[in-house]
Amino acid sequence: MSWIIEEKGFNKNNIELNGNKFMLGNGYMGYRGTLEEFGKDRLVACNLLGLYDRVGDKWREPVNAPNGFYTRLSCDDEQLGLPVSQTTGHRQSLDIYSGLHKRESTFTTSAGNGVSIETERFLGLSDVHLMCMKYSLKAAGSCRIVIETGIDGEVWDINGPHLKDMRPAVKQELIVLNSVTGELGCPVSVAEGLDIPFAAHMDIKMEDRCILRCISFEAQPGESYTFYKYVAVYTGNDIDRTESPTAVSGAAEEACLAAKGRGYIQLAAENAALWEERWKMSDVKIHGDEDAQKALRYSIYHLLSIAPSHSDRASIPARGLSGQVYKGAIFWDTEMFMLPFFLYTNPGIARNLMRYRVHTLDGARRKAAEYGYRGAYYAWESQDTGDDACTHFNVTDVFTGRPMRTYFRDKQIHISTDVVYGIWQYYRLTGDESILLEGGAEVILECSRFLISYAYFKKDKNRYEILDVTGPDEYHERVNNNAFTNMMVKHTLEVAVKTLELLKSKHAAAYEKLMAELDFNPELDALREMNDLLYIPQPDGRSLVIEQFDGYHRLEDISLQELKGRIINPNEYLGGGNGIAATTKILKQADTVLMLNLFKDRYPHEVKKANWEYYEPRTEHGSSLSPCVYALLAADTGNPEWAYKYFLKTATIDLTGESKQYAGTIYIGGTHPAANGGAWMAAILGFGGVGFDGSAVAINPKLPSAWSSLEFKLNLKGQLYTVVIDKTSVTIKSRPENTAGIDFSVAGKLLSCKAGGSISSGYNQNNL
Amino acid sequence: MSWIIEEKGFNKNNIELNGNKFMLGNGYMGYRGTLEEFGKDRLVACNLLGLYDRVGDKWREPVNAPNGFYTRLSCDDEQLGLPVSQTTGHRQSLDIYSGLHKRESTFTTSAGNGVSIETERFLGLSDVHLMCMKYSLKAAGSCRIVIETGIDGEVWDINGPHLKDMRPAVKQELIVLNSVTGELGCPVSVAEGLDIPFAAHMDIKMEDRCILRCISFEAQPGESYTFYKYVAVYTGNDIDRTESPTAVSGAAEEACLAAKGRGYIQLAAENAALWEERWKMSDVKIHGDEDAQKALRYSIYHLLSIAPSHSDRASIPARGLSGQVYKGAIFWDTEMFMLPFFLYTNPGIARNLMRYRVHTLDGARRKAAEYGYRGAYYAWESQDTGDDACTHFNVTDVFTGRPMRTYFRDKQIHISTDVVYGIWQYYRLTGDESILLEGGAEVILECSRFLISYAYFKKDKNRYEILDVTGPDEYHERVNNNAFTNMMVKHTLEVAVKTLELLKSKHAAAYEKLMAELDFNPELDALREMNDLLYIPQPDGRSLVIEQFDGYHRLEDISLQELKGRIINPNEYLGGGNGIAATTKILKQADTVLMLNLFKDRYPHEVKKANWEYYEPRTEHGSSLSPCVYALLAADTGNPEWAYKYFLKTATIDLTGESKQYAGTIYIGGTHPAANGGAWMAAILGFGGVGFDGSAVAINPKLPSAWSSLEFKLNLKGQLYTVVIDKTSVTIKSRPENTAGIDFSVAGKLLSCKAGGSISSGYNQNNL
Repeated sequence: MSWIIEEKGFNKNNIELNGNKFMLGNGYMGYRGTLEEFGKDRLVACNLLGLYDRVGDKWREPVNAPNGFYTRLSCDDEQLGLPVSQTTGHRQSLDIYSGLHKRESTFTTSAGNGVSIETERFLGLSDVHLMCMKYSLKAAGSCRIVIETGIDGEVWDINGPHLKDMRPAVKQELIVLNSVTGELGCPVSVAEGLDIPFAAHMDIKMEDRCILRCISFEAQPGESYTFYKYVAVYTGNDIDRTESPTAVSGAAEEACLAAKGRGYIQLAAENAALWEERWKMSDVKIHGDEDAQKALRYSIYHLLSIAPSHSDRASIPARGLSGQVYKGAIFWDTEMFMLPFFLYTNPGIARNLMRYRVHTLDGARRKAAEYGYRGAYYAWESQDTGDDACTHFNVTDVFTGRPMRTYFRDKQIHISTDVVYGIWQYYRLTGDESILLEGGAEVILECSRFLISYAYFKKDKNRYEILDVTGPDEYHERVNNNAFTNMMVKHTLEVAVKTLELLKSKHAAAYEKLMAELDFNPELDALREMNDLLYIPQPDGRSLVIEQFDGYHRLEDISLQELKGRIINPNEYLGGGNGIAATTKILKQADTVLMLNLFKDRYPHEVKKANWEYYEPRTEHGSSLSPCVYALLAADTGNPEWAYKYFLKTATIDLTGESKQYAGTIYIGGTHPAANGGAWMAAILGFGGVGFDGSAVAINPKLPSAWSSLEFKLNLKGQLYTVVIDKTSVTIKSRPENTAGIDFSVAGKLLSCKAGGSISSGYNQNNL
Repeated sequence: MSWIIEEKGFNKNNIELNGNKFMLGNGYMGYRGTLEEFGKDRLVACNLLGLYDRVGDKWREPVNAPNGFYTRLSCDDEQLGLPVSQTTGHRQSLDIYSGLHKRESTFTTSAGNGVSIETERFLGLSDVHLMCMKYSLKAAGSCRIVIETGIDGEVWDINGPHLKDMRPAVKQELIVLNSVTGELGCPVSVAEGLDIPFAAHMDIKMEDRCILRCISFEAQPGESYTFYKYVAVYTGNDIDRTESPTAVSGAAEEACLAAKGRGYIQLAAENAALWEERWKMSDVKIHGDEDAQKALRYSIYHLLSIAPSHSDRASIPARGLSGQVYKGAIFWDTEMFMLPFFLYTNPGIARNLMRYRVHTLDGARRKAAEYGYRGAYYAWESQDTGDDACTHFNVTDVFTGRPMRTYFRDKQIHISTDVVYGIWQYYRLTGDESILLEGGAEVILECSRFLISYAYFKKDKNRYEILDVTGPDEYHERVNNNAFTNMMVKHTLEVAVKTLELLKSKHAAAYEKLMAELDFNPELDALREMNDLLYIPQPDGRSLVIEQFDGYHRLEDISLQELKGRIINPNEYLGGGNGIAATTKILKQADTVLMLNLFKDRYPHEVKKANWEYYEPRTEHGSSLSPCVYALLAADTGNPEWAYKYFLKTATIDLTGESKQYAGTIYIGGTHPAANGGAWMAAILGFGGVGFDGSAVAINPKLPSAWSSLEFKLNLKGQLYTVVIDKTSVTIKSRPENTAGIDFSVAGKLLSCKAGGSISSGYNQNNL
């Protein structure tokens, strides 16, 4: 069943992996797939989006809330729980269709009694502060059961502890754990209510950073005992800062009581319905390939569970909500790898993601100024303020234990172009000009201004060049004229010109206001000149290969295998000052190939093919962002079987856990939303061959041989479509509620699809 | 006695050091201060200037000729020699006044007999191919002596062996060892003749790479036995390549026979006279400070013994003729640190040094083209062809054993500006326009052209910038707008403009020819514009400090002590990719301070002082080029006591051997001619306060308190002067043979000194 992820039997070595694999999320928070009795040493985390804290001089990272699901069990004074106790059966599962985590374990006591528990839990979609759990127990023989359940304030932290002044309290029928973050004193409150429909003795136990209810009763043989927990999490980010200090706690208590009032069964049913609603728009059906179907749905599940539908003040971190890895920071991953999924299926969330960049523009301005530039230089690792969480020493040298100077923060200037790319994609695909009027245009102009102030002019070649950058291939730092970066800069300048034209012609007042506020008139000549004279590395006349950056072709050309043979320490970083890849042609991840994929309409088939074939054997895929790009361009250039190989790699990453766990000595495990987004892109934009430029939708299918058909939904300018692609034809159905038609081009054949109508067209994959 | 360097007693640990310390040289070759019985494992070397060879894929290095002084001794079948035998007395000395190496050892045989030897040797000045040795022996008791002396082809090589096809031969009264270099097949011949004025049995013994005479006789108690060796060295570089293959050997044999004909005593006397002649022009007398006197004379000795008076096809390597270290390559050391000594005392040699750069211009053109530039980019490590011997991996990482990517070769662009600086200094001080007409102008224009093609224009700042360079401070690679480099670039452009004006006005035909040959007219606008608009980092308004390069002030500001506390491996390289100095403000060597010294007339006293005080505590002096620069600027800014401290450091480096012996895992020991030149500069240009701009000579003395007076010679435009500076006055004597007068400015007071005349002027050091 492709909707159920499960693991039978308990394997201690999988605790960390399963924390990622069985994760729940609702965009507000992520709850790791850990077991109820686990503590912080098993990486339990209720990871909060957009709330950060810093301890001492360690790096800032997101805050994990106290664990409201914490529950431990004893039978006749014997603790029962994993990984210590014996089990005769254990199963952990995730129903991704309903966003439901389940767990079943049967323990055997030392006296031979069998005690089984079953739990079920979910995070609220309509009320994102809510976490609910159902807990059932059955014993084979009569015994005395004590269940301690409540809120555990001892949470997993990489650079914690982040919560201080922890105050457990009882508020009528609720228990509450209030605390504040150490750096900014932001309140974090967790409240819990319990429904216990059987007779039991109840006590409350308060510890320093924990509050627990002790439920004790005599269990009868074969009798089932079930109770329900309602947990609400609120932080100072969620309420008006002018409210009273107890408002956060009050909100949590109120949400808790409201949930309890409605009851678990109803809440679970409503939640499942909301998940179903999401899937209606997001699901992709692959016929003929169960493995691909499951992996792709699982990838989509992760994207759905971390999407911030509730807020435009936060975006999706590089490891989603699976923990504090990568500082909970937002990278270019969001714009370049996750955004397309939302753009094509849920533009509202895409808008939130781009609005986050508008809100963090001032941080980008501060970063530009810090390095002596004008305009906006976005953070490589962005948190709540937009200031850069990335340091100049982002890797530890495994040979000396010293921090290693890296150039992610100060040289990866493409981040500003990525943000503009994202905003422009949003505008083009949705036609929603409000994103430009509400800050998007300002971001575009300020990023252009940054690039103008960054660029140099080479007089004897009469061209602008982009020097001293790090492109996507981070193994080669501080290079000149990185083809990807230069092209993205060009795109930004083009977008700036178009934005100015659009505003001037359609929103004259807004145009004048913005030009005045930004004092942008003096930049106009430079903007146009640089747009005209920017150097874009071109394909070589004979090989058609585009040199990744100036001098790349002079680097040592060795095989990946030979490079790996030189590795001394398995965790050594291959880039950086003395990295072994840095002096070779081996790249960390798609770089020129990514550029060709983003701008595939500007390059002929032969160039894309030649570059794919040249760079593919030289790519180490040291980043989880890489395989999907190779899948996309392979599909585009008519090689779906190669594309399929890379699609599977990107789609299964969080199922198998086969990804880098360390960069130098830094743990980088967790979920991989960019790869998840890459899986969707590879399927729909790659195999489906879908491309939308804001006017017509092109569909040029390249199904892999294993797939008999591919079915998916599209939301294009608010119009909803179902597309079914089989081996020979494409069928497009316009939903009855649609209000406008749209043009499609299937394998080059133009077709109009009226609102509520349906069109179908044959194609021959070999001719594409 | 300040003319004699000596060591009494034998210390095995000093073998390597003494090889440098007691070195003989005549510009054609250097013979290390090793003992006659030593073989290649004791680093015996007869190092040839300008002859290079490469074995396999190891780096090219200079060739060491077979050792014509090799001599070993036995007494009653017992080998006597160091370091094995017992000595009751041992003394090694160098008479730097006469260029004479002496050695005395008394051995005690196992039977208790005392055998003393005395040797004396020198390298020819009038015939630079010649090496002569006198060998005397005396035994306390009668015994059978066997002396084996000849030519040992087993020589010290770092990356050898370089000589193959070694053919020992007897040519009438001579023995000969012929060979050829492996890479280019260049013949190398060593011939030896012997004068033995006592009765002995003589045999010849040929080994694979060695030819020896066996001299055996019964020694009488107390009787002295003396013989003389005449050795001649010739290579294919010394003769017309079109001559017969035996011409090289023939030339060596001929030189040997001629020497033998004249006899050791006469040759030694003539040689001593030639050395005396050199000292007449080069000596510097320091009264009141024996240590300084000795160290400075010793420094001058080294400069004299490596100066290529015989050829303008080679220049002085960074380790002189002390071996193969640093590939026997010519660095910027020559122009910036050694040239001034020759310019002020022996302009003919200065001219040879600069002509070497003219001869290697094509190599510089090839290097520029290799990196995609126009014009001439001189080799960072220059050998015979001017192609760069420096690699991109010039240091080995001590932690991983891997070659480390360094940016000496491709980013130290100041080398081209240094060459131009040298040529222009030569022209200014000598007034000799022929250097410009015979290739110097071409070098200047081609270096300017390189810089034009290297520079970038920053439009929003309306200035040219020099990006991505490594300045003298090699711990900070790939920086932008290094103040030193930018200023040197500016100087090069100024010189190019002046050169063009000079040629146009005085040598119109040569001007037209050159402009046509170089197709230089299209560069003229760019040359003038860049000269006008080049960015030169300026002193900070408040601190007066000139930032060494863009962003230097943002680096970690730690003490030298703290930096050293972070060292894990004593040989670890502090620069390079992960070098611990690279991310701090600690500099390897004078950088901005060197710039201020070179252009001291362009900056006010306060700026020079402020920068000296700022950079001095942050300088590690990881290069032997550094202390003299601090001495010079300290003297200039009125701090002769600080200058004195640094003067002693630079002047004693080859006496004490206190210098870095390793960079990473690479041996970098040897003599330090740049430091030697720096000692002369510190004394004459620093303490003497001498400055010549081609018209008037400024003398602003800053004697250190220990010196009662300083006396030295100057050769200014062919006019010879003796200058005596004491605590209160400066006296200048024009030699009777002078033909023209010159103006002096002593402590600001203008004085004319007519040919053959003498002037004197008082000064007050405190007022300067």
